[in-house]
Amino acid sequence: MPGARGQDGATRRTIRLTIAYQGTRYAGWQWQPDQQSVQGVLERAVRELTGETVRVHGAGRTDARVHALGQVAHFQTDSTIPGVRFADALNSVLPRDIVICESREAPDHFHARYSATRKQYRYLIDVSSRRLPWLQDLVWHLPGSFDVAAMHAAGQCLIGRHDFSSFESKSQPDEDSVRTVFHFSVEQRTQAGPWTNNSELVAIDIAADGFLYHMVRSIVGTLVKVAHGRWKADDVRRVLHCRDRSQAGPTAPPQGLYLVCVNYDEPAHDTVRPVDQEAAE
Amino acid sequence: MPGARGQDGATRRTIRLTIAYQGTRYAGWQWQPDQQSVQGVLERAVRELTGETVRVHGAGRTDARVHALGQVAHFQTDSTIPGVRFADALNSVLPRDIVICESREAPDHFHARYSATRKQYRYLIDVSSRRLPWLQDLVWHLPGSFDVAAMHAAGQCLIGRHDFSSFESKSQPDEDSVRTVFHFSVEQRTQAGPWTNNSELVAIDIAADGFLYHMVRSIVGTLVKVAHGRWKADDVRRVLHCRDRSQAGPTAPPQGLYLVCVNYDEPAHDTVRPVDQEAAE
Repeated sequence: MPGARGQDGATRRTIRLTIAYQGTRYAGWQWQPDQQSVQGVLERAVRELTGETVRVHGAGRTDARVHALGQVAHFQTDSTIPGVRFADALNSVLPRDIVICESREAPDHFHARYSATRKQYRYLIDVSSRRLPWLQDLVWHLPGSFDVAAMHAAGQCLIGRHDFSSFESKSQPDEDSVRTVFHFSVEQRTQAGPWTNNSELVAIDIAADGFLYHMVRSIVGTLVKVAHGRWKADDVRRVLHCRDRSQAGPTAPPQGLYLVCVNYDEPAHDTVRPVDQEAAE
Repeated sequence: MPGARGQDGATRRTIRLTIAYQGTRYAGWQWQPDQQSVQGVLERAVRELTGETVRVHGAGRTDARVHALGQVAHFQTDSTIPGVRFADALNSVLPRDIVICESREAPDHFHARYSATRKQYRYLIDVSSRRLPWLQDLVWHLPGSFDVAAMHAAGQCLIGRHDFSSFESKSQPDEDSVRTVFHFSVEQRTQAGPWTNNSELVAIDIAADGFLYHMVRSIVGTLVKVAHGRWKADDVRRVLHCRDRSQAGPTAPPQGLYLVCVNYDEPAHDTVRPVDQEAAE
């Protein structure tokens, strides 16, 4: 409905948001009865601001305790608030663990989920012996030796178009499990970080045209077996091709996972890119 | 009382702890009536474990919302728990935001506060335009241009033995305000970090034989005026020498401050050193 008229004669617009949140306190992105969800909190914030009851559609349905650096969402509104002003306005009523990084008007046909062409996730593993209190909800703490190069190499077989049933937690038989992975890398930073030597933080980056339920966490849980020397790259290839979830490793815990960014078919300068993405890719 | 006998005939020992904590939920290190303190929670944990009511003495009395990477504390006990086992035992009853990194038996004359010869604090400023939800309780977010080199240079006048009254929040007239600063540096990391480009995180490191109340935060608040181009190095020298708190800049907020480590006169391998301290010094 381009330029549709609302009931009070205002023009309905689509507002696109880029959102960062810490998922620790939430049952996940998606609205759930009797539980705090990021979507629910955002919808309440829009209602507080505009008086409208809207549905906020997110690009990725992140799980409980999963975070986002650049979740994208949209909603439709009859309000007269300029698109770019929604970020500050929403931030003024949102809790501190949800931040609107950017807001703007989008074309009417824009849909945060269905228009997305690429999503990137990052998984952080802290391999240091020391457990830092403030990282407990932000990383998977796995102290001990960790073969980053073997994990990186073993994960390269995931790149391309595959049936990822082996890495899907609840396979819905009528749903397509084929996805295209564009990028997979495992990197251990060598520079000193703010609290620890960053070389003790392992970042696993994966980009695809879409992700199945628990796909990143199943892949991470499986590849950790390689990092720990218990599996070889051939085992990962075998798991991928057998399309059987029971053959893969365990699902990694949620708190290490971040939805980094969502891309759409649009000019590059419109794309939300974290500043360190160049280094990661 | 070396080897003193407790009332049940056990030998009283001094246990030394190295502690990391996120200060967000606490009114500070020090016990306070009707408020959660790190000291109070630790004393409760020791009581739960040993049945003893002890005083846990900390090296530094960190303020509300201030964190520690390597706070040192000690207490005396008649229990038979081996010194090195206290870490795991206490961690099993402590909340997640307090972690005992190390425990061991110390000489009877050891006192976490009075035996300390050097303390190191770090202050983290996030100068990126983006506000990350999970860093809000862990850094001071000061978006905008920030002259790290000017701040570093201006702070060098602090090194040495000085009366730091200008950087003391509540001057107690009968207390000595002379301290010796061993190290001062401001560094902006250039490598990519786990969530952001680390070059947007500024780390201010300061080591001294002791610190006055709010001393680090007053120094940071003052030197930010230099980083923002409003003051020159000469202004900092003038403030230092006038011994008047009203001449200095504001007190920086607590959440960017970390007690990094406490040193004692002992062999180097006994000293708690964060892995990135070499880079910082």
